[in-house]
Amino acid sequence: MATAPSKSSPALPTKQLARLREQLKECAAGLGGEVSARTRAAQLAETYLGLSDAGRHEFLRLIALEFGPDPKRVATAHAAYQQAVGTPGQWDAEAALRGAMRSSRIRILTQFNAIPQGVKFLVDLRADLLRYLDKDADLKALDRELENRLTSWFDVGFLEISRLTWQAPAALLEKLIQYEAVHEIRSWKDLKNRLDSDRRCYAFFHPRMPAEPLIFVEVALVNKLSDSVQHLLDEDAPTADPHRADTAIFYSISNTQVGLRGVSFGNFLLKRVIEDLQRDFPRLKTFATLSPLPTLRLWADRNPDIFAACFAPDLAKLAKQAGIADAEALRALLPKGEWAEDARLARLIEPGLIRLAARYLVTAKSGEKPLDPVARFHLGNGARIERLNFLADTAPKGFKQSYGMMVNYLYEPGDLEENVEAFMREGRVVAVAAVRHAAKG
Amino acid sequence: MATAPSKSSPALPTKQLARLREQLKECAAGLGGEVSARTRAAQLAETYLGLSDAGRHEFLRLIALEFGPDPKRVATAHAAYQQAVGTPGQWDAEAALRGAMRSSRIRILTQFNAIPQGVKFLVDLRADLLRYLDKDADLKALDRELENRLTSWFDVGFLEISRLTWQAPAALLEKLIQYEAVHEIRSWKDLKNRLDSDRRCYAFFHPRMPAEPLIFVEVALVNKLSDSVQHLLDEDAPTADPHRADTAIFYSISNTQVGLRGVSFGNFLLKRVIEDLQRDFPRLKTFATLSPLPTLRLWADRNPDIFAACFAPDLAKLAKQAGIADAEALRALLPKGEWAEDARLARLIEPGLIRLAARYLVTAKSGEKPLDPVARFHLGNGARIERLNFLADTAPKGFKQSYGMMVNYLYEPGDLEENVEAFMREGRVVAVAAVRHAAKG
Amino acid sequence: MATAPSKSSPALPTKQLARLREQLKECAAGLGGEVSARTRAAQLAETYLGLSDAGRHEFLRLIALEFGPDPKRVATAHAAYQQAVGTPGQWDAEAALRGAMRSSRIRILTQFNAIPQGVKFLVDLRADLLRYLDKDADLKALDRELENRLTSWFDVGFLEISRLTWQAPAALLEKLIQYEAVHEIRSWKDLKNRLDSDRRCYAFFHPRMPAEPLIFVEVALVNKLSDSVQHLLDEDAPTADPHRADTAIFYSISNTQVGLRGVSFGNFLLKRVIEDLQRDFPRLKTFATLSPLPTLRLWADRNPDIFAACFAPDLAKLAKQAGIADAEALRALLPKGEWAEDARLARLIEPGLIRLAARYLVTAKSGEKPLDPVARFHLGNGARIERLNFLADTAPKGFKQSYGMMVNYLYEPGDLEENVEAFMREGRVVAVAAVRHAAKG
Amino acid sequence: MATAPSKSSPALPTKQLARLREQLKECAAGLGGEVSARTRAAQLAETYLGLSDAGRHEFLRLIALEFGPDPKRVATAHAAYQQAVGTPGQWDAEAALRGAMRSSRIRILTQFNAIPQGVKFLVDLRADLLRYLDKDADLKALDRELENRLTSWFDVGFLEISRLTWQAPAALLEKLIQYEAVHEIRSWKDLKNRLDSDRRCYAFFHPRMPAEPLIFVEVALVNKLSDSVQHLLDEDAPTADPHRADTAIFYSISNTQVGLRGVSFGNFLLKRVIEDLQRDFPRLKTFATLSPLPTLRLWADRNPDIFAACFAPDLAKLAKQAGIADAEALRALLPKGEWAEDARLARLIEPGLIRLAARYLVTAKSGEKPLDPVARFHLGNGARIERLNFLADTAPKGFKQSYGMMVNYLYEPGDLEENVEAFMREGRVVAVAAVRHAAKG
Repeated sequence: MATAPSKSSPALPTKQLARLREQLKECAAGLGGEVSARTRAAQLAETYLGLSDAGRHEFLRLIALEFGPDPKRVATAHAAYQQAVGTPGQWDAEAALRGAMRSSRIRILTQFNAIPQGVKFLVDLRADLLRYLDKDADLKALDRELENRLTSWFDVGFLEISRLTWQAPAALLEKLIQYEAVHEIRSWKDLKNRLDSDRRCYAFFHPRMPAEPLIFVEVALVNKLSDSVQHLLDEDAPTADPHRADTAIFYSISNTQVGLRGVSFGNFLLKRVIEDLQRDFPRLKTFATLSPLPTLRLWADRNPDIFAACFAPDLAKLAKQAGIADAEALRALLPKGEWAEDARLARLIEPGLIRLAARYLVTAKSGEKPLDPVARFHLGNGARIERLNFLADTAPKGFKQSYGMMVNYLYEPGDLEENVEAFMREGRVVAVAAVRHAAKG
Repeated sequence: MATAPSKSSPALPTKQLARLREQLKECAAGLGGEVSARTRAAQLAETYLGLSDAGRHEFLRLIALEFGPDPKRVATAHAAYQQAVGTPGQWDAEAALRGAMRSSRIRILTQFNAIPQGVKFLVDLRADLLRYLDKDADLKALDRELENRLTSWFDVGFLEISRLTWQAPAALLEKLIQYEAVHEIRSWKDLKNRLDSDRRCYAFFHPRMPAEPLIFVEVALVNKLSDSVQHLLDEDAPTADPHRADTAIFYSISNTQVGLRGVSFGNFLLKRVIEDLQRDFPRLKTFATLSPLPTLRLWADRNPDIFAACFAPDLAKLAKQAGIADAEALRALLPKGEWAEDARLARLIEPGLIRLAARYLVTAKSGEKPLDPVARFHLGNGARIERLNFLADTAPKGFKQSYGMMVNYLYEPGDLEENVEAFMREGRVVAVAAVRHAAKG
Repeated sequence: MATAPSKSSPALPTKQLARLREQLKECAAGLGGEVSARTRAAQLAETYLGLSDAGRHEFLRLIALEFGPDPKRVATAHAAYQQAVGTPGQWDAEAALRGAMRSSRIRILTQFNAIPQGVKFLVDLRADLLRYLDKDADLKALDRELENRLTSWFDVGFLEISRLTWQAPAALLEKLIQYEAVHEIRSWKDLKNRLDSDRRCYAFFHPRMPAEPLIFVEVALVNKLSDSVQHLLDEDAPTADPHRADTAIFYSISNTQVGLRGVSFGNFLLKRVIEDLQRDFPRLKTFATLSPLPTLRLWADRNPDIFAACFAPDLAKLAKQAGIADAEALRALLPKGEWAEDARLARLIEPGLIRLAARYLVTAKSGEKPLDPVARFHLGNGARIERLNFLADTAPKGFKQSYGMMVNYLYEPGDLEENVEAFMREGRVVAVAAVRHAAKG
Repeated sequence: MATAPSKSSPALPTKQLARLREQLKECAAGLGGEVSARTRAAQLAETYLGLSDAGRHEFLRLIALEFGPDPKRVATAHAAYQQAVGTPGQWDAEAALRGAMRSSRIRILTQFNAIPQGVKFLVDLRADLLRYLDKDADLKALDRELENRLTSWFDVGFLEISRLTWQAPAALLEKLIQYEAVHEIRSWKDLKNRLDSDRRCYAFFHPRMPAEPLIFVEVALVNKLSDSVQHLLDEDAPTADPHRADTAIFYSISNTQVGLRGVSFGNFLLKRVIEDLQRDFPRLKTFATLSPLPTLRLWADRNPDIFAACFAPDLAKLAKQAGIADAEALRALLPKGEWAEDARLARLIEPGLIRLAARYLVTAKSGEKPLDPVARFHLGNGARIERLNFLADTAPKGFKQSYGMMVNYLYEPGDLEENVEAFMREGRVVAVAAVRHAAKG
């Protein structure tokens, strides 16, 4: 990537740091007019690209710590503002306080926008920033300012939805292979299969990053809810007639730009995709996902008691038949997947896994929100948990992260708003009765 | 225009106002998720478009006064911030204070962006706002927030420069006719002449307002500095070979969007245009304007003493020959233009007008900046005053606003930065010696 | 136009003619390979463009007379062919005879295609050729070869139908103004009105002449059959909702390229337009024209007896009331149009004009086909004569060529094929009973 | 491909044949007007696509044999023509004879053009025709007519040259993989390498076959003449700076449409490519190919005496060192390639292979033209044989067809025309002295 930090160059020597500080000051002051300022900023941006990781970190610290607002000026403006509250001067004073809060940081960063592909540069710079932020809280104010600016720039009103087909530029399709985060695209043949006539792939683009899909979703047009991702990805499966399909399955949704963390547009994308599909395929009745449970196993490993409880009544049987000593042994066995080939054993395991997954989705929380990140996204969009699918992802990764389990989230247009409301207000997880019962059972 | 306020509908009745308040609150609260919020906001935007002017004013007041930040929350966050200054918690506290300052106003307005052509809608809404602002200072904080948002959206890095030719869509060229603010385009034939092979027309566009040029400049490729705009606009003049031209004259620059007041991009446009011209026409040596002096006469009318002084030594001669009683009578005569046809009289008047225009440009100020808005723009870009032109705009409007005088501003690439610096730091007006002398004489 | 013959240069001097002959021989021989031959041909094409009209004529005569097939070679090949008929060698001999007939003329002309906009060049060259052909039958074989080649190049399968809107390039819309052959486009405002939302304009384009519409049709979406072209062209008439229209009126069809005489595509255009309209406006039930009768008056002037007969029974009344002495005087009066303002007089004249127009359309022939060129076109497409309209074109040209009369041809999709068949086989003019009766009355 | 004949359907039953004959007659007669005729023809074209190979053959025989010109009508027209020769009526009579020769065959076929992608359909139909033609000379007249029509449609003036990059649609790039006829493209990675910044790929397209490159050439920008195609195709070789290259190597040229046999455009493509490269890379001095010798081994196998003579003086040495018994054994050994790994052996073999290849290129003929098809193409374009390269194509196919030998043809812009002339007039093979000497040695 253009902005991968140079490994060879060391961190910033003191002399260069001093020079950088001077240059940043000139940028912030805007000497010589805006046009010249942008030109100088562009040079600084080029400098940034040539730095090592440590150098970039120092560079960003410099901006974060030395180009913030002046606390004294803020204090003065704040005092005036509070005094004006309730008087005709309040609104002027408010604008003045906001002016005092405005920092040079964001001014410097947005001037970097002047380089070719400047937007992509800033998104990648934010990706760097987020890495440093993990261990360096001093960057927080800068990160928040940059996030706000990117949120403004990536307002959903500016994004373009595009359908990606086999007619798209190879350079663009190559990005799908690179960015696919859920079910790896193994080859160009695999990719072509995902763009076939019974498939759809949509992405959001920003007008100033035309070569970069921001987020993309892969859709299969099928009959009935899908219960196996391997079936969907089978390159040798016959192509179905999409005009006879009654169900659209969103089987992969990938965000591509780490630097846009906190800028949300996934929900808008699904909304637009559903509208587009409804127009093109009026026979579609059901819109649902086939989604992974990325942290099911992690959670199960941390909650051995719950795990054991889910399998409890059957565990004795299992033990006998499969030489499984106890819940612990079972937990060690399940992520490996070989057991799935023994149909009888699988049948014994299924009810426990269903219970486990149901309990995970319905009860496991991080704060007030579901622990599962995919559940957070779809429930936050107003979808409901519709069905748990046993042996739905039999790839090694599928067993490793969720014992082969997957879940369908259903988008019922009429219910979305109410579901979102309940989810946001009280953290309610909307699920069909079968799943709710399984979670309790 | 899409947003021209409805004349028939009255201001907001109390009941509708109450309903609006509720709807705005829902918008601000984001009930039912972002997607639903945008949908509701879009309905509000449609409502706005249907209101009368008074109704729109009330609507905006509602947003301005009732959806600002909470002074108490600001006070608390500010106290925490000031306490944290100098400690590791400063940056977190800064971000928190900025969060407390964030108002629902801008959230509401940007949600309006969801309607088709939402960007244009907000630009036009700002144009409304600016009108009300003149008499209603309560809207100031809202206006400033909206200006900031528009400044972010219309960052020059997002704008596209396009050359407009006779191959452009008629619907777009029609906008040039409509928006031309300096020298009226009288007909499609006039327009076609301005797009001929010895002309260039460039505009900036925003990717989400593709049908609206934001600013455009008309250029003539000529030999030597132009001294007559009528000559440039003559549809019957032969077309010159642009590849032999040594001078590019920017003879008309028009901003089109009232709602983008305060968002600057004119200087970037000229820079890009000069680069483009240099690449296409390597023989070009001189880049200059032929510009009006829009408030020369206004200023002269307010400063009769200066006027009289400029003509002083010649006034006796003039009086005799043309039946002009005194400076006062001369001031009344000059805006009418008939005198220009009497060559002898014109020769007598010329030196005085040159002095008057020079003094106006060099000495007339508004604050520390030149009084003349066109001078403010070009000097602020680093251009210098190169030459004053007598009888350069002989259209009625030309006589009326500046007695037919025009001025060339010269863009000398090597000097721009230093000129801007001097202009910004000390308000220095850069002019050639001849003009400086005339201003003193 | 690019190929307007130079007026200053004289016809070809003998020396230049000799040189041209040499160059053409080189072209025909293809010395130095095809690439070089094309390059030389391009130079010859440039030479052609620089010649006077007389010079071009000589140039084409040179090609026509000296680069045809060799009669002796043809005789030999023909003898061999006739001998081979009925034997296995027939097909080879046929190909050989065809080879002997192949002339260098077309080889030379198609090599001209190598200049930029070569297709347009050849179309314009054919327009020249057609002018000379009128008086110089020696060019006939050349013209026929060129017509065949153009027919092959302008095969309807290669043409693109485009809808032209106000979003089209101004340079292209300007061509509509220039080429409109039926109802003059008076201004850009008039043009814009013809592209409004209740109008449609379609054109055929050739991929190698993208700036030139080959033929275009203007359509109004209305309710009921139109009976007045002035009403359709009224710029101040309110815009109707096209989605409520039940009738599409083709009110102007213009061929633009004289050089494509004999190459037909008008019928394909109407077919495609009807399909496009049906898809966009499912409520449309009727597809019809509002067409001129371009040679009605000419024919009436040549057939005073028929004219008199049509007005016969009413002539006495007319005479009394309007001071019209006789049929002769009436014929002199009608093309002027003032009479139309006297409503009573108009009412008296109407039946006679209806009869006259009906008889003209139904009975006036040129060979076996209708004399009226517009009738030939629409009847040849399978349309039927639906209604005659009195005072339907009240522009001076309308009175002058057809006393203000116009006609609706109706395209009834289910009847077209049978109508064409009858028209082509037996020259049958399909008309509704009312028109047929009027023609007899 | 769309037109692959159906394997399941049998040849035409008598009944269907009779029906087809009727339909073709209707097509030829144009009943019901051109629009209806095209519609019916389109149905016939669809019928064709559904036929088996034998059925298609019969279908084409029907057209070939029953829809040709009428010999009697031809005889009459010919007699009239010969009589008119030398009189003013000659040109009319010539046009009439040409009219009599015009057959319904081509009318039927071009009407097929009305189906979507009609041009591609006809090109593929010609590919079928060429297959049948090998064993069925009755199709010759039809084939020649179709060839003429395709030659007219694929006139080089209609073709568009496009540079293909990694930004091209994947569906289009996939065609390169499919059509590459010289050096197989093994993977998308291989393809991407061939489109890298030090490479160029150009293709000709027809405006009505936008998804099909007609011919494409792959170019490497290098320093000095290339002597190894494996080096050029090495995906792991570093990318060179194309702006420092002095030589453009055309290392692969592929015609893609079998059905366009006899329609030439390869030479125009190279000319356009050279112009484009010269403009973009002014430092390029040398334009040359690295070409295979596709039939060298075939020719050597048929001429064992020449083979033996080329190796004669060294054969004893070779025999000793490598256990090669005689020329015969050597001929059997060379196509396998293992010998190349024995550097000493290779050094012994080199001079003989150089002599063999030189003699093959310079002396082996088919009629008056070189036997080697690639040599025919490049020498026919005016290139010269510049250098023979030993072990230049070490892929199995390279050894198999030419013992690893390749050749550089040099395009010296100043010499092309003279070379073509000499080649066409006297079949002269232009080669540098070294090659000429080797051919004699």
